[in-house]
Amino acid sequence: MLQVMIINGPNLNLLGRRQPEIYGEDTFDDFMIHLKGKFVDSDVELSYFQTNHEGELLDKLHEIGWNYDGIVLNAGAYTHSSIALADAVAAIETPVIEVHISNVHKREDFRHHSFLSPVCEGVIVGFGLRGYELAVQYFV
Amino acid sequence: MLQVMIINGPNLNLLGRRQPEIYGEDTFDDFMIHLKGKFVDSDVELSYFQTNHEGELLDKLHEIGWNYDGIVLNAGAYTHSSIALADAVAAIETPVIEVHISNVHKREDFRHHSFLSPVCEGVIVGFGLRGYELAVQYFV
Amino acid sequence: MLQVMIINGPNLNLLGRRQPEIYGEDTFDDFMIHLKGKFVDSDVELSYFQTNHEGELLDKLHEIGWNYDGIVLNAGAYTHSSIALADAVAAIETPVIEVHISNVHKREDFRHHSFLSPVCEGVIVGFGLRGYELAVQYFV
Amino acid sequence: MLQVMIINGPNLNLLGRRQPEIYGEDTFDDFMIHLKGKFVDSDVELSYFQTNHEGELLDKLHEIGWNYDGIVLNAGAYTHSSIALADAVAAIETPVIEVHISNVHKREDFRHHSFLSPVCEGVIVGFGLRGYELAVQYFV
Amino acid sequence: MLQVMIINGPNLNLLGRRQPEIYGEDTFDDFMIHLKGKFVDSDVELSYFQTNHEGELLDKLHEIGWNYDGIVLNAGAYTHSSIALADAVAAIETPVIEVHISNVHKREDFRHHSFLSPVCEGVIVGFGLRGYELAVQYFV
Amino acid sequence: MLQVMIINGPNLNLLGRRQPEIYGEDTFDDFMIHLKGKFVDSDVELSYFQTNHEGELLDKLHEIGWNYDGIVLNAGAYTHSSIALADAVAAIETPVIEVHISNVHKREDFRHHSFLSPVCEGVIVGFGLRGYELAVQYFV
Amino acid sequence: MLQVMIINGPNLNLLGRRQPEIYGEDTFDDFMIHLKGKFVDSDVELSYFQTNHEGELLDKLHEIGWNYDGIVLNAGAYTHSSIALADAVAAIETPVIEVHISNVHKREDFRHHSFLSPVCEGVIVGFGLRGYELAVQYFV
Amino acid sequence: MLQVMIINGPNLNLLGRRQPEIYGEDTFDDFMIHLKGKFVDSDVELSYFQTNHEGELLDKLHEIGWNYDGIVLNAGAYTHSSIALADAVAAIETPVIEVHISNVHKREDFRHHSFLSPVCEGVIVGFGLRGYELAVQYFV
Amino acid sequence: MLQVMIINGPNLNLLGRRQPEIYGEDTFDDFMIHLKGKFVDSDVELSYFQTNHEGELLDKLHEIGWNYDGIVLNAGAYTHSSIALADAVAAIETPVIEVHISNVHKREDFRHHSFLSPVCEGVIVGFGLRGYELAVQYFV
Amino acid sequence: MLQVMIINGPNLNLLGRRQPEIYGEDTFDDFMIHLKGKFVDSDVELSYFQTNHEGELLDKLHEIGWNYDGIVLNAGAYTHSSIALADAVAAIETPVIEVHISNVHKREDFRHHSFLSPVCEGVIVGFGLRGYELAVQYFV
Amino acid sequence: MLQVMIINGPNLNLLGRRQPEIYGEDTFDDFMIHLKGKFVDSDVELSYFQTNHEGELLDKLHEIGWNYDGIVLNAGAYTHSSIALADAVAAIETPVIEVHISNVHKREDFRHHSFLSPVCEGVIVGFGLRGYELAVQYFV
Amino acid sequence: MLQVMIINGPNLNLLGRRQPEIYGEDTFDDFMIHLKGKFVDSDVELSYFQTNHEGELLDKLHEIGWNYDGIVLNAGAYTHSSIALADAVAAIETPVIEVHISNVHKREDFRHHSFLSPVCEGVIVGFGLRGYELAVQYFV
Repeated sequence: MLQVMIINGPNLNLLGRRQPEIYGEDTFDDFMIHLKGKFVDSDVELSYFQTNHEGELLDKLHEIGWNYDGIVLNAGAYTHSSIALADAVAAIETPVIEVHISNVHKREDFRHHSFLSPVCEGVIVGFGLRGYELAVQYFV
Repeated sequence: MLQVMIINGPNLNLLGRRQPEIYGEDTFDDFMIHLKGKFVDSDVELSYFQTNHEGELLDKLHEIGWNYDGIVLNAGAYTHSSIALADAVAAIETPVIEVHISNVHKREDFRHHSFLSPVCEGVIVGFGLRGYELAVQYFV
Repeated sequence: MLQVMIINGPNLNLLGRRQPEIYGEDTFDDFMIHLKGKFVDSDVELSYFQTNHEGELLDKLHEIGWNYDGIVLNAGAYTHSSIALADAVAAIETPVIEVHISNVHKREDFRHHSFLSPVCEGVIVGFGLRGYELAVQYFV
Repeated sequence: MLQVMIINGPNLNLLGRRQPEIYGEDTFDDFMIHLKGKFVDSDVELSYFQTNHEGELLDKLHEIGWNYDGIVLNAGAYTHSSIALADAVAAIETPVIEVHISNVHKREDFRHHSFLSPVCEGVIVGFGLRGYELAVQYFV
Repeated sequence: MLQVMIINGPNLNLLGRRQPEIYGEDTFDDFMIHLKGKFVDSDVELSYFQTNHEGELLDKLHEIGWNYDGIVLNAGAYTHSSIALADAVAAIETPVIEVHISNVHKREDFRHHSFLSPVCEGVIVGFGLRGYELAVQYFV
Repeated sequence: MLQVMIINGPNLNLLGRRQPEIYGEDTFDDFMIHLKGKFVDSDVELSYFQTNHEGELLDKLHEIGWNYDGIVLNAGAYTHSSIALADAVAAIETPVIEVHISNVHKREDFRHHSFLSPVCEGVIVGFGLRGYELAVQYFV
Repeated sequence: MLQVMIINGPNLNLLGRRQPEIYGEDTFDDFMIHLKGKFVDSDVELSYFQTNHEGELLDKLHEIGWNYDGIVLNAGAYTHSSIALADAVAAIETPVIEVHISNVHKREDFRHHSFLSPVCEGVIVGFGLRGYELAVQYFV
Repeated sequence: MLQVMIINGPNLNLLGRRQPEIYGEDTFDDFMIHLKGKFVDSDVELSYFQTNHEGELLDKLHEIGWNYDGIVLNAGAYTHSSIALADAVAAIETPVIEVHISNVHKREDFRHHSFLSPVCEGVIVGFGLRGYELAVQYFV
Repeated sequence: MLQVMIINGPNLNLLGRRQPEIYGEDTFDDFMIHLKGKFVDSDVELSYFQTNHEGELLDKLHEIGWNYDGIVLNAGAYTHSSIALADAVAAIETPVIEVHISNVHKREDFRHHSFLSPVCEGVIVGFGLRGYELAVQYFV
Repeated sequence: MLQVMIINGPNLNLLGRRQPEIYGEDTFDDFMIHLKGKFVDSDVELSYFQTNHEGELLDKLHEIGWNYDGIVLNAGAYTHSSIALADAVAAIETPVIEVHISNVHKREDFRHHSFLSPVCEGVIVGFGLRGYELAVQYFV
Repeated sequence: MLQVMIINGPNLNLLGRRQPEIYGEDTFDDFMIHLKGKFVDSDVELSYFQTNHEGELLDKLHEIGWNYDGIVLNAGAYTHSSIALADAVAAIETPVIEVHISNVHKREDFRHHSFLSPVCEGVIVGFGLRGYELAVQYFV
Repeated sequence: MLQVMIINGPNLNLLGRRQPEIYGEDTFDDFMIHLKGKFVDSDVELSYFQTNHEGELLDKLHEIGWNYDGIVLNAGAYTHSSIALADAVAAIETPVIEVHISNVHKREDFRHHSFLSPVCEGVIVGFGLRGYELAVQYFV
């Protein structure tokens, strides 16, 4: 059975709380239930981890980076500033897919550069929560 | 029935001919057959257009941009230089998804910037030919 | 009799079709009729050419650049990227006036630089369709 | 009756005095007589103001910016450096047209950027003194 | 017998017409006759192609890039802006030599950078029409 | 008794006149009455000076810069361009506090840099008219 | 009763310990006692939080950002590098005031840019510890 | 007896695990045993600390920065992004030596700049694990 | 008899008042007496003008720029920002020598660039008040 | 008889010694014999000079720059940094051709700019040692 | 008696030979005779040194930099590139005056920056050979 | 026996002479005696070379670069400007260690970049003269 973890970085725990009139009132935990439902027939075990701490993202990648089959990583704002995170992605063996919910290229200039993209397997940007689904699908 | 067109830009006609030991000997036409097979049960009609001419890309977008349901666009090198193409994508009503076969962020600096990304619905980078499939799947 | 050609570049064929609630439902052909009416008493023959192809813009400039009396050029997005077009304008003998419908200086940064301006006779920006009229008036 | 003021900034008082072999021996006052003659049949009252003082340009814009119908502004070198002037143009209600006698894009790099362009109604560059006439015509 | 094609890009069809007092009244076709004469005893067949269309340059390179022995390419202004052209040169197998008639390094800054140079076999700049001859000589 | 002068630079005389629906219909003179009321029990004498002239700002700073106890300076757009003003602030002995009504960091890039900040005692940004009050409070 | 929290970022726990001959021997806890004394008659409850961890700053902002009335934030060096922190400030509802003890504009270049300023209500720079007092006063 | 601590930053815990065919299978703990052996006759007590958390690096520096005699710091990727870490090094009294195992100047551009170098006593780059030894030697 | 005017720009009226322990207590008027004494035997008439107003510098240059024999100009901070001043210097016929009392190249970066230098006859920097003397000597 | 000198700059004396498996074991002296053989029937006298000293390159150019007919200059790394060398080339009367053995545009960024190109007659890049031959041929 | 040496850098030995129709046919040796004549009554001994070698400039500065009273240095193109020369000027005790014959600010951009200016006593630019005279006069 | 040469570049001959109150009155020759003493029991022969000439540094590296075992290179200011020197280091076989006496990262910006670092074995910065000792120790 395929082991895939979805990892969310800073501020992504606010989903469902921040601007619910736009993003809806569903939290990411709600979405995980929906997502697992989608892949119920696939031979894949989905797990989820969120933290606002850059260091904990590194610890987690080190922990699972040699025994999981895939990682879907939305590092939030650390995408644009964390060389340490990019080093961790480059160091581990599990392939990582970078996902962003919104189209970061429509936003401020400092969100156009990603330290992660050159070390990730692929990048999916701007498809909303469906981006996570497409990423999991790629592993499946 | 959903109308989706895949549009490839400059040099992408060389697939199957350029470095076959790496990219394989299949042409994009071969891939289209494979792709249509994948979506044979979906209510989607897939068509394909390739050109090396920037102007013909604009003409094509103008032609289908109000009556198709989705466009999957790999504009090749024009991605990084053509404001005109971005203007066309912004002008039409059909949503466009930007796809790149290779992970452009691992390549030269001038391939890191895309004029298209801010006006596209979403961006998929680095999944090889499977990127086209994920994009079609999004429309389906 | 004075020979003046108005040349429009990429995406300008969409006038009347793109965002009609803003730009109106009149096409550029409609506007040409109106414009010819304005100069019916002047000794000037107005003609019109539009293309989305950079190469055709060059071909046209080469064709008329030694026998017309004036060219009014709105090169659209090629304004900001085409050195070849600027070279063509510099090479021909007919004076060229650069026109932009919208005030490009209120838009994205990459629209603030024009390769054409240094080789044109004059530049008219931001007067809507009336910019074409002012340009023709200058030749008359 | 339409009230339109032409405002000239620094060094433009030297017209007719600086390099008369090139610019001719006519002063701007001479040109104003000629210009008024052109619009004698239009319902427009043309007035003229020149100063070398940035502060006086602001004072004048504040004074007339709510009761004139149009302003034709050639701010000379302040075009390229005065944010205060741009703020004044943005603050007043009378529409302002930016005019430059020479084609500034053919000159030094620091003359290619204008703080005024994004807050003006339109921009006319490179038509010599006729640029003022075209601007007035637009208001008429 | 060696197959070598000389390919000229935008505006180079104007040779003999643009500023004949400087460049002479000979067209490039005249020069080709002269050039063929020079290599009449060599086992080389020289052909010539010119276009103002970026897309046609790509098409031509794709067409001959696996069966010709050498290409002498003067891409004119596309040299400085076309990543697509550089990709095409990199993709084909026939070696390409970049030629410029004038010394581009004495001209505007934007002519100092070439996207083609890193993918060409060699570069010859500033020798006038003799640059083409030196390039052919290299292949012979 | 403490002598404190509030100095306003270019366009700030328009308060109460520019966009009254947003900024209210009160002029800065109205605000000064309100402000003096606030400090009626403090041992401070508040005075006010406004000008659109960079030179007059310098003259005023020279005049009071050795005998006042505090200066609250909102130099408007000169903040971002006037080295001369910064030199004057650095030269005088009276401490100067830089105030901006709006949050300049939310506005255009050229408003993010201040020549004054490094030579002022402190900086207060974005508190509306209350920023002046906080600045006076600091001196009191 | 108004709830206001003062949050200090990295290295600010060293106050009273680092260079006591300059900054004095008082710690920030000492200062908090002094500050609470100042506002003893106001209907405000002041609390204090310090951490060297970027992630804990985010956690804290998430925790109180929907139920406190005001936050006074001195993010220390994270001010200049943390997009994640700026995102958190932008996401929460409680207004945040950015405070810096020293005048950062007199220091190294990399301290002149703040990711927080555009998302904060206001900014107070260079008033020493009194900056916190002015910020609290604004909320009161 | 001299107290010296070696502090390693993010991803350096992977030594011995990441690319063992290159770096060997020894962990940093193994290396510490070797290093202590080297200095067994010197009057120095060596200790070791590693963390992936920026905040913990600061906490540790604060903790030992007034009672240790020397710190050997390899901050990994935080070297290039953490102003907070540089501030901590500058604040404490214990001298710090910056060490990098690989020659960072042979790697990506963003690894060429170090926020730590200007506040460290010295810098040792590119000597592999021997760099730590040279640094300790300096303190001894 | 030779007519030479010394013109000083913003803040230079503070000489003798600002930091007298460094610059001495002599004002520029005192220095002018000394300077005239130096040239009492030369056929030169020295006059002096100072202003803090950019506009008045322009007015003065226009006034004397066709009838004086030499101008010694220390434009202070306007040196680095005023294109208008440079235009005035370029427009007049009297040769202008740029003088700076201090060595501006030892100061902040923004003082290293001068708009005036390219249009002045010569530049003298860093000789204190003696710079004025050397400049006058050149004219004599 | 034509006098042509080939001048090589720094490190080019290592040819035949550095990486002989790539560049071969022939020294430049060996190559000179070969080259002279090629032109034995032409009326040209070839001489050769190499030095690692920038100053000696200047001395040599001064010495022969008014009596030789052609100079073929490979200035090695001084190409990218020596303004003095460019000044010397511009000062002398003998035409100079710049040659580089390798395609410098495929190498590090700092090798893409040449101070010599704008002052040389022509530039030949990337043809290996044959570049010298093509350059001599041009003179012959 | 005052010891002053005039030191000229690269290419300045060409004076009188390069473009004699412009610079005259006098060599710098001729000028030295003229200059010595000017100062025959002053208590100054003038000597002269020229070299094209950066290293010899350093050697000379080291040799005389503790026993001469003044150095007049025209370092030619090394002005813009030699940090070593600037270090030498900064290290010695004899004051150095930087002189340039032409107005370098009217020439290419790379001639606008001088590594020497911040470490020289003063700078004299654009007065032709008279600049040397003014510099000597300063020492006298 | 190990052959190691210490090579010093421009201005480093001034040690002991420049600012002796800071650097002491010992010359580098004195230091060499001390250094040799330190390694008297090691099987290493230390030699020393200093020059102010860039070309002589190259000559020396070429001379010993295939028969010495180690080079300790302090290239002084040439570190920051000499591509030729970097090329020489890259070409030779003897490993080179870059040493700087002072912490160059605390000095001017142009001293932060080294052309040598990417081609050297290792870099040691800021340890004073002890840096040479650590470098020799590495070879031993």
